[in-house]
Amino acid sequence: MDQRVSFITLAVRDLMASRRFFVDGLGWEAALDVSGEVLMFKVADKVVLSLWDAQAFEAEIGSPPSFGGVPPVTLAHNCATKEGVDRVLETARRAGAETVGDAEEREWGGYSGYFADGTQVWKHGYSGYFTDPDGFRWEVAYNPGEIGQAVLP
Amino acid sequence: MDQRVSFITLAVRDLMASRRFFVDGLGWEAALDVSGEVLMFKVADKVVLSLWDAQAFEAEIGSPPSFGGVPPVTLAHNCATKEGVDRVLETARRAGAETVGDAEEREWGGYSGYFADGTQVWKHGYSGYFTDPDGFRWEVAYNPGEIGQAVLP
Repeated sequence: MDQRVSFITLAVRDLMASRRFFVDGLGWEAALDVSGEVLMFKVADKVVLSLWDAQAFEAEIGSPPSFGGVPPVTLAHNCATKEGVDRVLETARRAGAETVGDAEEREWGGYSGYFADGTQVWKHGYSGYFTDPDGFRWEVAYNPGEIGQAVLP
Repeated sequence: MDQRVSFITLAVRDLMASRRFFVDGLGWEAALDVSGEVLMFKVADKVVLSLWDAQAFEAEIGSPPSFGGVPPVTLAHNCATKEGVDRVLETARRAGAETVGDAEEREWGGYSGYFADGTQVWKHGYSGYFTDPDGFRWEVAYNPGEIGQAVLP
């Protein structure tokens, strides 16, 4: 089996609220928009984020999606700089994200290097989370490590 | 805010079980493998799937991830043919997926065309689901519609 994720599908309870947040608020452009059914966004090369009406989700999966508590999934949007992280969090705040945390330094994403005089320098990951209308946590991240840089556009 | 998802992070309860399933079972190759902490896979151009220990997830998010019931998220792996879908589901079955449904025709992904004699032909989406060790549903899909073809490698 190839290592490939083509679609990320999130069950949503109110597609109108999703559209207000992602399209009107964040300024995203839908690749497919079927009222009351689905809203799709291209979020990487050959990857589509699909916000799918929770009832349609249930009809196909056979059981209702479990809402409540913190969903066991987060989606991350990586930025090339810490300032970029702060700007995106501010955009999410203006778009009406339910909660928006301030970005902070993280344990992960560490990167060490040396100045010419031999002093060691450490760069840390830096990120903050916002919550979309269905409670999904979105992480906005600056990750100076190799894998963080590898996902930048 | 750019339309970009860089990381898909799933909270997992037992990274050893995740490794057995994805690496040993499905044959995937980890981009990063930190025992007891995280297992990362490149799953598209500039997109990484991160399986993150549930306790580390909780430490960063501030609340435990909600397990139980059907997670409100699915990840889809699109195939170019129906036969490809059946093959991948068989691979998941051999890898020990908790449940593997048979693929079936779906409402979505419809595509209509005409034969030279004017007869209309409909192609439908075709997919089946398997469940990974943490209960996440993976959809293996053939989607003859425009958006389904757009995500193929």
